[in-house]
Amino acid sequence: MKIALCQTTVHKDWRKNLRNAERVIAEAVKAKADMVVLPEMFICPYNKKAILSAAQPEGGEAWQSMAEAAQKNHVYLAAGSIPESEDGHIYSTCWIFDREGKQIGKYRKMHMFDIDVEGGQYYNESSVITAGNEICVAETEFGPIGIAICYDVRFPEQFRLMQQRGVKAVVLPASFNRTTGPAHWELLMRARALDQEMYVLGCAAAGDLAGSYNGWGHSIAVDPWGTIMEELGEGPGMLMAAVDFAKADAVRSQIPVLQQLRTDIYEVCEKTVG
Amino acid sequence: MKIALCQTTVHKDWRKNLRNAERVIAEAVKAKADMVVLPEMFICPYNKKAILSAAQPEGGEAWQSMAEAAQKNHVYLAAGSIPESEDGHIYSTCWIFDREGKQIGKYRKMHMFDIDVEGGQYYNESSVITAGNEICVAETEFGPIGIAICYDVRFPEQFRLMQQRGVKAVVLPASFNRTTGPAHWELLMRARALDQEMYVLGCAAAGDLAGSYNGWGHSIAVDPWGTIMEELGEGPGMLMAAVDFAKADAVRSQIPVLQQLRTDIYEVCEKTVG
Repeated sequence: MKIALCQTTVHKDWRKNLRNAERVIAEAVKAKADMVVLPEMFICPYNKKAILSAAQPEGGEAWQSMAEAAQKNHVYLAAGSIPESEDGHIYSTCWIFDREGKQIGKYRKMHMFDIDVEGGQYYNESSVITAGNEICVAETEFGPIGIAICYDVRFPEQFRLMQQRGVKAVVLPASFNRTTGPAHWELLMRARALDQEMYVLGCAAAGDLAGSYNGWGHSIAVDPWGTIMEELGEGPGMLMAAVDFAKADAVRSQIPVLQQLRTDIYEVCEKTVG
Repeated sequence: MKIALCQTTVHKDWRKNLRNAERVIAEAVKAKADMVVLPEMFICPYNKKAILSAAQPEGGEAWQSMAEAAQKNHVYLAAGSIPESEDGHIYSTCWIFDREGKQIGKYRKMHMFDIDVEGGQYYNESSVITAGNEICVAETEFGPIGIAICYDVRFPEQFRLMQQRGVKAVVLPASFNRTTGPAHWELLMRARALDQEMYVLGCAAAGDLAGSYNGWGHSIAVDPWGTIMEELGEGPGMLMAAVDFAKADAVRSQIPVLQQLRTDIYEVCEKTVG
């Protein structure tokens, strides 16, 4: 399975970003991608005003554009994240489409990026975005694929629960920044991959020093042994990751941590949200 | 709080290793250590025959030697691990003593090192060691200190549970090998530190190319930001880590992941072992 991580530049005009996404999806498919992943908030700059003005419901123009791009290119598509409006709330939503353009998954970012690093990055995502409440796994012809978004990567439990649902690869639309990017991006991506012995594929927006939020870029593919397969720089680009579930099986057999969990002592319990 | 990680060489004669441990404890205290940590199985080579012949009960010669060393040097001591015999079982046990030589904690390694890496390390720890069943946190004048041993570092849940008990520093007697050492040691130590935003201090035995188990050494201190403070090489040596819980508090406030856990969706549940 070939998964393309498209590190796009985000412009102010959300329709322009959609057109750009349509273009890179077609390019990725020319390069033989089976699945295309777009960055978190690829549709608008990562600030409150831009998010509010680009927000739209499921089935709206952005959703339609992405569904059509999946169908037209006959490719699986994890459409980064788009500000989804519903009932007066805005979610950071990743819609996942199959090769026929049918929605096979929907993930709303679950952990809000509210941080305040001394002398570094401040952000208060929850002032505009509402957190989702559900783990997401999409079924594909290759097997189940997990979805998480950016800051979620700091929460091991979410990845444990995806792995328990049979996931051997997680795609992660993201947009780390110039404080936590250099400090933590590679570490967290490698940690989640090795903990669950699966692929973790992070697709970030390209850096934009002129923007209000300075993205770190560095889209990355990590294998189930925790090794970086490939990593981009800050500029726009595409990373094509060859994902082989047999490799996850091999690692899981050689260092069988997933069978060695002491579930008689502890367990990640999932709760039902009312 | 200053914690000394003493990377000792392991000889065949377990009494010789005890004498060596007594010596390095005194040296660490001269260098102002508040706590001394010894490596996993510092008392005998890491093979079945040696473990069986060094095994002894709580209160036995090794236990007494370590309790006395703590008292004599007026220092906290996490006595690496020693093969503890009880009721026909052998555990890999870390006894923790306070400055008066009183036992304030006891941890039996919970995850067995049973791996078989293609073209690399094979080991079947559970053929000689019985796994413990309890998380361990020792109360000190500085605050609670968590204890885990070597392979445990691959299991995020154990560290979550220690953090939930107020831990801001975990000491980890270890003995990684030349397959997983270069591949995973730093990554896992940094991952556990950043996930819980706490210090993780790994004390490994020195490498011994002549031995049946080739240790990786590389004792390491990682801070709550996931940064390596210091790391040794393969040879014997001492690493003195300055641990400042205020730094853990600062990281926890700046990137408040521990408050942002979605415990309404998932939680690491601890079970009662009968």
